[in-house]
Amino acid sequence: MAAFRVGILGHTGYSGAELVKLLRKHPHVETVLLDHGSETGWSSLGLSVLFLATPAEVSLELAPAALEQGIRVIDLSGAFRLRTPENYQRWYGVPHPRADLLAEAAYGLPEFCRPRIPAARLVANPGCYPTAANLALRPLVEEGLIDRAVGVVCDAKSGVSGAGKKPTATSHFSEVAENFSAYAVLEHRHVPEILLTAGLQESEFSFTAQLLPVHRGILETIYFRAGAPVEAATIGELYRRRYAGEPFMRIHPEGSWPNLHRVAHTNYCDLGVKADPSSGRVVVVVAIDNLVKGAAGQAIQNMNLLLGIPETAGLL
Amino acid sequence: MAAFRVGILGHTGYSGAELVKLLRKHPHVETVLLDHGSETGWSSLGLSVLFLATPAEVSLELAPAALEQGIRVIDLSGAFRLRTPENYQRWYGVPHPRADLLAEAAYGLPEFCRPRIPAARLVANPGCYPTAANLALRPLVEEGLIDRAVGVVCDAKSGVSGAGKKPTATSHFSEVAENFSAYAVLEHRHVPEILLTAGLQESEFSFTAQLLPVHRGILETIYFRAGAPVEAATIGELYRRRYAGEPFMRIHPEGSWPNLHRVAHTNYCDLGVKADPSSGRVVVVVAIDNLVKGAAGQAIQNMNLLLGIPETAGLL
Amino acid sequence: MAAFRVGILGHTGYSGAELVKLLRKHPHVETVLLDHGSETGWSSLGLSVLFLATPAEVSLELAPAALEQGIRVIDLSGAFRLRTPENYQRWYGVPHPRADLLAEAAYGLPEFCRPRIPAARLVANPGCYPTAANLALRPLVEEGLIDRAVGVVCDAKSGVSGAGKKPTATSHFSEVAENFSAYAVLEHRHVPEILLTAGLQESEFSFTAQLLPVHRGILETIYFRAGAPVEAATIGELYRRRYAGEPFMRIHPEGSWPNLHRVAHTNYCDLGVKADPSSGRVVVVVAIDNLVKGAAGQAIQNMNLLLGIPETAGLL
Amino acid sequence: MAAFRVGILGHTGYSGAELVKLLRKHPHVETVLLDHGSETGWSSLGLSVLFLATPAEVSLELAPAALEQGIRVIDLSGAFRLRTPENYQRWYGVPHPRADLLAEAAYGLPEFCRPRIPAARLVANPGCYPTAANLALRPLVEEGLIDRAVGVVCDAKSGVSGAGKKPTATSHFSEVAENFSAYAVLEHRHVPEILLTAGLQESEFSFTAQLLPVHRGILETIYFRAGAPVEAATIGELYRRRYAGEPFMRIHPEGSWPNLHRVAHTNYCDLGVKADPSSGRVVVVVAIDNLVKGAAGQAIQNMNLLLGIPETAGLL
Repeated sequence: MAAFRVGILGHTGYSGAELVKLLRKHPHVETVLLDHGSETGWSSLGLSVLFLATPAEVSLELAPAALEQGIRVIDLSGAFRLRTPENYQRWYGVPHPRADLLAEAAYGLPEFCRPRIPAARLVANPGCYPTAANLALRPLVEEGLIDRAVGVVCDAKSGVSGAGKKPTATSHFSEVAENFSAYAVLEHRHVPEILLTAGLQESEFSFTAQLLPVHRGILETIYFRAGAPVEAATIGELYRRRYAGEPFMRIHPEGSWPNLHRVAHTNYCDLGVKADPSSGRVVVVVAIDNLVKGAAGQAIQNMNLLLGIPETAGLL
Repeated sequence: MAAFRVGILGHTGYSGAELVKLLRKHPHVETVLLDHGSETGWSSLGLSVLFLATPAEVSLELAPAALEQGIRVIDLSGAFRLRTPENYQRWYGVPHPRADLLAEAAYGLPEFCRPRIPAARLVANPGCYPTAANLALRPLVEEGLIDRAVGVVCDAKSGVSGAGKKPTATSHFSEVAENFSAYAVLEHRHVPEILLTAGLQESEFSFTAQLLPVHRGILETIYFRAGAPVEAATIGELYRRRYAGEPFMRIHPEGSWPNLHRVAHTNYCDLGVKADPSSGRVVVVVAIDNLVKGAAGQAIQNMNLLLGIPETAGLL
Repeated sequence: MAAFRVGILGHTGYSGAELVKLLRKHPHVETVLLDHGSETGWSSLGLSVLFLATPAEVSLELAPAALEQGIRVIDLSGAFRLRTPENYQRWYGVPHPRADLLAEAAYGLPEFCRPRIPAARLVANPGCYPTAANLALRPLVEEGLIDRAVGVVCDAKSGVSGAGKKPTATSHFSEVAENFSAYAVLEHRHVPEILLTAGLQESEFSFTAQLLPVHRGILETIYFRAGAPVEAATIGELYRRRYAGEPFMRIHPEGSWPNLHRVAHTNYCDLGVKADPSSGRVVVVVAIDNLVKGAAGQAIQNMNLLLGIPETAGLL
Repeated sequence: MAAFRVGILGHTGYSGAELVKLLRKHPHVETVLLDHGSETGWSSLGLSVLFLATPAEVSLELAPAALEQGIRVIDLSGAFRLRTPENYQRWYGVPHPRADLLAEAAYGLPEFCRPRIPAARLVANPGCYPTAANLALRPLVEEGLIDRAVGVVCDAKSGVSGAGKKPTATSHFSEVAENFSAYAVLEHRHVPEILLTAGLQESEFSFTAQLLPVHRGILETIYFRAGAPVEAATIGELYRRRYAGEPFMRIHPEGSWPNLHRVAHTNYCDLGVKADPSSGRVVVVVAIDNLVKGAAGQAIQNMNLLLGIPETAGLL
């Protein structure tokens, strides 16, 4: 029986629709679809959590409205993912009106930020590219495994759903099918989210976003040099140790690689590693479903933490 | 009127079929399709050039047979692309029986090896990945622009035709569509071809091959650090200068990027650049049609050079 | 808690793998994967049902072996779908060794054959094309709505998974993508299954199978003349009445049409109708997921009936 | 050397861009790209022909403007394909302002309308679906082969480019890929064009348009009953006789079928036939490239006829 009632705003986009689909199978929640303009009635609905699957500019307006009514918010946009208005202004090109909420928001990457989430009023659900990149990179940065002088390359490829449902010249079937293209090279607005969470400097990190002719899925190929000779098996072991007990992390055995099919329609994040000990070259391949672990699934992980129910509820 | 008669062996594969299609539109040649086993009759055909669009092990057998009959050979396989039997043994896993021909073969990347090609008896047509990588990298290595201590990353993506026409589990529609996957990470046999021509050491070069759900096209995203602060415009200018007069090289203006559609069914190689002068980070994106500039088209470029006719004949 | 143990043979093909995936989510069964050659041990496994997701020739051998051990069988192949050895010989091109089992097998289309299924020892799970065609046609034939003198056209399109997982020249990505083609025109071996269940004569029925560049899904466009003037709404009403209470049948309102996305990964069969009362022309569009309602999902529907558990268990 | 100068309006859409691409390879013409609003300057350009690759409402305005300046027009829209304002009003939903031009326009299907084209001032280039349907049907109607009481079914499938370049919800990659859907069932505005040219009555003809997840290509599967017993070979022979000397018609041998790959990027129309003499059932499969024989290629065929140059110039 559903013990909690949750609301969703922005259920027509790809992330929102995925969220509705997943929540409908969730054993502990009842879902209410809300429209923009319904703010005045929220408090009477008894919502335990409100999901905002809206553009950043809409979230900037609605998140405060919900918080004022005592409703906890999980925001899927980029509105509250960075920590300072200055950083937001630089990457999003507009001023951020609520420095207080930027400072308050809990970043919703459970594998690294779990302690702060249960008590949060506002959760900033991570971006799709940063989810994959940070799950691959942060354990390596923490261990000091990466030669920071050489830096890190993250070559990222995403399915079309990552660009949203709005019909544009670049999302037209005839433009995407049988094509592949790069965009936002070295200047994607997901970069600062990766730097903040992985613990890297911008000058150390090269990021290219690329559009795959598929509907869903992100695969990132990450390159760096190890500071000291290291085997792939050692890095695999590091991941397994760091992610022991994590229900959504899967580490491939050496020689086997993640791909989009294996993670599609799941909340899993798959990791594979190759290393050349003599030169220190390391390649990590990471894959997630951008609409699940990269958006709606992770939002439900965060909701489960807010509600104090098992973190995997509705996600396995 | 056709002035030359040329033969093709292996016209049923993707590269061979593309070659036949392109040669049929070529203004100066008449094409003869040959079958394996026809060797004894070649000399009577009066062939000016024989194309081998065959697997390396077949080319190793047929190229010597043709040369003995005085027929010049353009081999599209990997059989004669490396320079020493030792290197061949390491990357192809079998001994090479003809060190003499390895030493003799001209590497058929006209933009860099043009002088040796016209008089060659045996041309080793470059691999598809190396064609793109070398056209992007060699001018930069020659100019000393790359910080070699940091090294170079080449993240390569290819359409399915690059893996050949043979039906396999990995080329099945249901396996490829809506998927994306990495293979041969740090150990693709095209790596030594890139090292030799670009002038890099293996320890400096990280290469990942990946399978795109498209039929044709290669796009490679290349990352390095400049040894000194450099603008994208400066690198663009370097390419334009180096490739001045080259009919198949196109340099994108800054902020515009190559993609597969723009090069499909053409012999063009497109290059785009982004740089961050403060950190030295540089990204180069290079795209070709793997079946044209990466195989059949380049083979015709080489044939034109062998025959002393305009290098662009049949290719524009 | 799982109350029943079921076995699967042929779990590596697309239908078999889909069956395993669906059974793993089924609340009442535990699944055992079996290999060919394991026949002697079946009786000791205590299997309530054995699924054969094997080629017809293998099912012809294994179904009798299971029945002799007292194990009930749901066969997903074409081995037991026709009623006489003569008909089997004509369409499958080989003799049928077990006329007795052909006569005994219950045809597993629950919407029409439900009464016989619960007590059956052997269920012949319908073919994918016939499932869609029969769900669209049989109510209309039963009502005498179709002008039989004019006959029925069924233009059928299927995703690649319908042709199986075996890599062939026709399933290669490069052959299928950006293509569309017809095969087995007027002679597909699913035709007799449609005739038998819909109640049509071969001379009245034209069927073309066609290969869509998608992984899963069947859409059939069916054309006929009504014997008397009829509105689309009337036919819609007829379907709604006939399928009242059927959990997997969905009738579209006039002007809305089934498509593959709407049925993908579900056991639903969607129907849409358009009619021109003045001329009697009628078009019915029917869509299913060939791997679910057209194979594994329907097999589970049949299993639920055999086991006396709710027919929708594990399927909603 | 180019002997003629031709203009194009609407070169940014798919048909217009294909036209520009094809004309650039044409040996006898020089192409001028024109913008809407440039009408006053047309007469000074010395245009031999003006192509309108514009929406019908724009063609209705620009074709008269060109004709008044003495410039011959080939219109790729539906503006002048029907013969009476009444018919136009019914299928296009708006009044037609120029009954005189409807009456005057030559329908540009050279295989049937060649005599009238060379002297025409205004050529109505056929729609994509009607081109395929009429090339398949008209010879059969002319020969009286079809049982008209039973009628004809035309099940048509088109690539996405047929719906134009404008980004819409239905052309979004994520909506089209892995999908297939019907639209405009029994009411597509191409129907009257087929009826007029094939010589059928609306009550005799059922037409469904369907969207394929491919960029280019149309395949139509046509069903009818022969009035008397007929073999596929006989119908094949009829086509071969009727299309003897036609450079763009290819008749498949029995058992071989047209597909989209075989006609892509060509002006060919491929036909295949299967018949069951005992029941009279016949299936004809016809395929064209909707952007070439279904639009730009056929427009060039018509231009060649207007200019008195070889009909295949620029098209082989």
